[in-house]
Amino acid sequence: MKFSVTVTLKKDVLDPQGKVVQNTLVNIGIKNLKSIRQGKYFEIEVDESELLTAEKIVDKMCKKLLVNLVIEDYKINKI
Amino acid sequence: MKFSVTVTLKKDVLDPQGKVVQNTLVNIGIKNLKSIRQGKYFEIEVDESELLTAEKIVDKMCKKLLVNLVIEDYKINKI
Repeated sequence: MKFSVTVTLKKDVLDPQGKVVQNTLVNIGIKNLKSIRQGKYFEIEVDESELLTAEKIVDKMCKKLLVNLVIEDYKINKI
Repeated sequence: MKFSVTVTLKKDVLDPQGKVVQNTLVNIGIKNLKSIRQGKYFEIEVDESELLTAEKIVDKMCKKLLVNLVIEDYKINKI
């Protein structure tokens, strides 16, 4: 079973990396850009056929390693 | 108009960063993990109300800066 996990900074946390990307895009002449924020993306394949159990395993991975819960949010989707 | 962009390494490109994450997850006792690959994620807000035009702007950003087309694929979704 395959899942995608997107990890984003919480709304009120500054995103200096995204800011640099934003400035660069403006500098190379892209117009109409309002804001850009950067996050992480994982594609995880789990050897488990039951959806709920598989989701629980992925959730455990997020909490234990992939996500810093103090400053980040995450979303798990089945793909 | 808001879009999400996920950037992933092409299928045949090695992902050393993902490999390290995978080994670490195994080491901290996660079972049933088959594979994990890491990518990038962007949330982009564009100041443009027409969907097609907005999508074109985001696509231009990807091609010009956000994605290395030699080794990476990308997907744009409206959110």
